[in-house]
Amino acid sequence: MNSILVVGSVALDSVKTLEGESREALGGSAVYFSLAARHFAPVGIVGVVGEDFPGQHRDMLAGRGIDLGGLKAMPGKTFRWVGRFGRDLSDAKTLATHLNVFKDFRPTLSESQSRASVLFLANIDPELQAEVLAQMRAPAVVACDTMSYWIAQKPEALRELLSRVQIFFANEEEAKRLTRQANALRAANAISEWGPGVVVIKKGEHGAVLKVGRRFYVFPAYPLESVKDPTGAGDTFAGGFIGYLTAAGDFADVGHLKRALLYGTVLASFNVEDFSTRSLEGLTREAIEERLDDFMERLSVDRDGILLASR
Amino acid sequence: MNSILVVGSVALDSVKTLEGESREALGGSAVYFSLAARHFAPVGIVGVVGEDFPGQHRDMLAGRGIDLGGLKAMPGKTFRWVGRFGRDLSDAKTLATHLNVFKDFRPTLSESQSRASVLFLANIDPELQAEVLAQMRAPAVVACDTMSYWIAQKPEALRELLSRVQIFFANEEEAKRLTRQANALRAANAISEWGPGVVVIKKGEHGAVLKVGRRFYVFPAYPLESVKDPTGAGDTFAGGFIGYLTAAGDFADVGHLKRALLYGTVLASFNVEDFSTRSLEGLTREAIEERLDDFMERLSVDRDGILLASR
Repeated sequence: MNSILVVGSVALDSVKTLEGESREALGGSAVYFSLAARHFAPVGIVGVVGEDFPGQHRDMLAGRGIDLGGLKAMPGKTFRWVGRFGRDLSDAKTLATHLNVFKDFRPTLSESQSRASVLFLANIDPELQAEVLAQMRAPAVVACDTMSYWIAQKPEALRELLSRVQIFFANEEEAKRLTRQANALRAANAISEWGPGVVVIKKGEHGAVLKVGRRFYVFPAYPLESVKDPTGAGDTFAGGFIGYLTAAGDFADVGHLKRALLYGTVLASFNVEDFSTRSLEGLTREAIEERLDDFMERLSVDRDGILLASR
Repeated sequence: MNSILVVGSVALDSVKTLEGESREALGGSAVYFSLAARHFAPVGIVGVVGEDFPGQHRDMLAGRGIDLGGLKAMPGKTFRWVGRFGRDLSDAKTLATHLNVFKDFRPTLSESQSRASVLFLANIDPELQAEVLAQMRAPAVVACDTMSYWIAQKPEALRELLSRVQIFFANEEEAKRLTRQANALRAANAISEWGPGVVVIKKGEHGAVLKVGRRFYVFPAYPLESVKDPTGAGDTFAGGFIGYLTAAGDFADVGHLKRALLYGTVLASFNVEDFSTRSLEGLTREAIEERLDDFMERLSVDRDGILLASR
């Protein structure tokens, strides 16, 4: 069976939004990604935590079937992020980042990890992403994400990495900054020229753009009247997207890629309904399918009613 | 046959965007609306221009089948708007507004105008909108739009008007301001409590939200790599939306309302591809249907590929 390896952060987040706050709660890109992807395929985390990482989080993740064999515990403290969201939910204000044990993180894959069929490189240093990629045997597909910090700090390393990646995820603002384009579609064009045949531009509450080959597909976000905490939405989206494709065993078919986008959207919609990983922890595949049905019903339009008479 | 009456501005616009500029070019909400709606149903404009309004604009509109019997020419100058768009295409900066003849505009409907089956009240003073509505015999449906200026200046008149309107259009920011809600869906909820059973929140390049009864439908904008001039996109959208519904003869069916939204989206996508009314002037119903097909193909997702085995 196809399996997924994700390399990224495992964190303790303190987040304030207009709807409330969470303190030192479970977070990190690898955590959100794997809690979404686990519904579709086996997933293992490569990452690092400090001695203070609560055993209950480890138990929760392992209890959800996530392989923690690659999650090292090192002397020191776990990576921490402190952030705030105002009215604009797409705009995370970072108040503090404490790298702690993440500062000296040098991922080394085990024999079995290096044989994973799908690799997801979450938004860490592109040089680290490349180091992990170099250790892989023959992955069927490599996907990666990044963030504005790395676009500003290591644009060359990022572009070099992109030439060896098939699926690239970026926020709209990040994609525009990376390519110096004002239009999201033109940004996707520029990115795909550097390598990835599939580019996904995430627009948060405004949905996502999918570029496959030369063609664009745009979908809205699942409509929600209340968003409590957008933290991790992008990684959860990627987890649903890559998870579905891995189970489908096809990473290039447009039909599968569109469905992957809808699964990512649905997973992210659950995630933002509560703080930290709360709504993802107890989520069932049944609830995911139910919301997907509901989402597709809303999106469905047929041609029948069109009045050719007045043409 | 059902016909549409639109009351709104007929203007000469001077617009600068990152892609170029236009000077003293044809514009105004009633113009954009009717150039879109004419593809679906007979449409007449109620409005006013000055003595300086170029005859060629009158000829162009009449040549497109738009009834100008209600377009008065008054001593003085035509309404003018001067605006600028930067990177954020949803944010029009008004540099100057010269009301001119529009200042003393008091619309009086003729007998035949008052019998139109559909009334669209474009974004003028809500007291004027109410005056027009009071002159109508028995319209099958009344739709209206507004803008932030009237939300700030005459919120009471606007709410009073909304209690007599079935379909309401607003930009996302306007809807949020009008209702003091941070979420677009909650804003639509508040608006529908004041009257309209159908609420459309326009999000520009991010698409639109449709509320029918208690349910929300969200659609993206048609993907474009280049937007030259967003002026009039909202009115063009409303023209396609109301035009399609008028031809369908049904203003409450969800299937028709969704298709109306897609027609509005397609019409607006043509409009923003060039300055002023340039791309709308020569547009054919065939080109509209072709882009609608293309749009629906991009949006279509089927359930077939879903892997219930891994459930």
